[in-house]
Amino acid sequence: MLNKNFAVGVDLGGTSIKAGLVDKKGKIIKKVSVDSLADGGVETVIRQIKHAINEVMNGKSGKILGIGIGAPGSVKLKKGTVENPPNLPGWGKVHLGTILNKEFGCDVFVENDANAAAIGELIYGAGRNFKNFVMITLGTGVGGGIIIDRKIYRGEAGYAGELGHVTIDSMGRQCNCGAIGCIEAYIGNNYLIERVKKQLQEGSDSLLLNYINNDLNLITSKLICDAAIEGDDFSKSVVVDTGTKLGYSLASVVNVLDITTIIIGGGVAGFGKLLFDSAKSALKERVIASSRNSIRILPAKLKNNAGIKGASALVFYSSLKK
Amino acid sequence: MLNKNFAVGVDLGGTSIKAGLVDKKGKIIKKVSVDSLADGGVETVIRQIKHAINEVMNGKSGKILGIGIGAPGSVKLKKGTVENPPNLPGWGKVHLGTILNKEFGCDVFVENDANAAAIGELIYGAGRNFKNFVMITLGTGVGGGIIIDRKIYRGEAGYAGELGHVTIDSMGRQCNCGAIGCIEAYIGNNYLIERVKKQLQEGSDSLLLNYINNDLNLITSKLICDAAIEGDDFSKSVVVDTGTKLGYSLASVVNVLDITTIIIGGGVAGFGKLLFDSAKSALKERVIASSRNSIRILPAKLKNNAGIKGASALVFYSSLKK
Repeated sequence: MLNKNFAVGVDLGGTSIKAGLVDKKGKIIKKVSVDSLADGGVETVIRQIKHAINEVMNGKSGKILGIGIGAPGSVKLKKGTVENPPNLPGWGKVHLGTILNKEFGCDVFVENDANAAAIGELIYGAGRNFKNFVMITLGTGVGGGIIIDRKIYRGEAGYAGELGHVTIDSMGRQCNCGAIGCIEAYIGNNYLIERVKKQLQEGSDSLLLNYINNDLNLITSKLICDAAIEGDDFSKSVVVDTGTKLGYSLASVVNVLDITTIIIGGGVAGFGKLLFDSAKSALKERVIASSRNSIRILPAKLKNNAGIKGASALVFYSSLKK
Repeated sequence: MLNKNFAVGVDLGGTSIKAGLVDKKGKIIKKVSVDSLADGGVETVIRQIKHAINEVMNGKSGKILGIGIGAPGSVKLKKGTVENPPNLPGWGKVHLGTILNKEFGCDVFVENDANAAAIGELIYGAGRNFKNFVMITLGTGVGGGIIIDRKIYRGEAGYAGELGHVTIDSMGRQCNCGAIGCIEAYIGNNYLIERVKKQLQEGSDSLLLNYINNDLNLITSKLICDAAIEGDDFSKSVVVDTGTKLGYSLASVVNVLDITTIIIGGGVAGFGKLLFDSAKSALKERVIASSRNSIRILPAKLKNNAGIKGASALVFYSSLKK
């Protein structure tokens, strides 16, 4: 029998929808993953979301505390409106919160997935004991969420915390966002892999070449990490460079916000200690002197299923504010 | 006869202390400027501050609303503690608020001068009608203040809004703060003048050379502005470059904060329309698409005596919060 100690978290992506029944401590009781069927358009995706939610609540009717949705792109809180999400073609504006509230009769909280990740760390993870922190997620894109006084800081229109689009070189590499020199254009997963491929094509020697049997298309950030751990100099230099550039971008963030606790998550964060050490050292080197000794960089605690957990945390977070 | 409609504002600098009696609308009724005598140490400077305050209240005994102090460097609000202010040698930590409260028996509010400038614009100036804005002051240094929901955002330890130390090129010019590529290292007044001198030495042709009778030590940002207005191509390029770089740095700030109203003040802002247009155009080009159409760049309204007015605004700001 479900009760107010449980929430459903939904991680809405362009490829798959992951849903989980989660308890107050962030433990996943049951989870499902269904295809988003994004090409089918809005109605189809919404049907898949409802399907996934029903699946995780299957046979356990009763009143859960609520449903949380982590959605890509911009979200308006009031009606849980998802606006023009990347990877979900044809959405425009969809009042997803209102729609799901009608279907399931419980509170529904929709948030941008980067903000949901920060709230996940706040409620269950590495941010539990901090009043203020910045969460940065290193994946295909580089996303961010800002927690001030244990609340998510959304800015004027919900776009705050676009940490992937902090400049490290205003005359540098082209970023997908249209600007030049954003940190994402250097350490976003795809950019990173492209750069590594190019360097290997140009003759850099690396243990990676053994791992992939010389098929450059097989390179992943996981393999770079493995090779770095094995002591491969090339891969170590990639990890150090990634951490250093990340640290440079974080110096601007800390100088603006005076928030000195940084939590790093996402796939590229799997680079591990060498990444964290390089980021911390670059950040301390570049931040204003008065903030230097307060700098703290922590790995995110929600690793697997961070999307589901972050989404479910929206429900518990919201109940805290009441 | 003075009453609660008046405040005293004190602009504490390394060279001079300016104090003014200011009314609720930001009008200066009387002002004085005295030498800081900074080499004399803490006691001497405090005596000069008291002297200046007594001067502006001279012969008009009575209860003003309070005294506001804009101080360089880091300030702790509780006791109005000024910590290691640049240009005031030997200060360490001075509880200036407590000291002046004992002397004058009224409320005393001490703030970092960049934050005081932002509060000045909030109370009397270009920020009066905005809930959120970022104030950036272009002078010898580049300073900033962040207003969120009509309150100054100070961060964890009062260091927030260090907008001069947002990176535009992490492999670029050395900044005084120890980091590389901060916007201040490109558009702070001294850096700017040095760069112009160098370009003229290297043979750039400019109307400026006539203005200064070939004595490069006479170059000021005011002269660059005048020459640009006269149509001098070299000076125009300096102004456009300054605005463009400023815009690039502001893109990072807006992407982090999602605050789209920017108020620009300080001497270099005297570059005028060409500077503002270049900054706006660069910012709109570089900010994430969803914020692009909300961008608004405004000149500060408090120009002359902005320091005194900003300091006095601390008193009225504080009375609003009660």
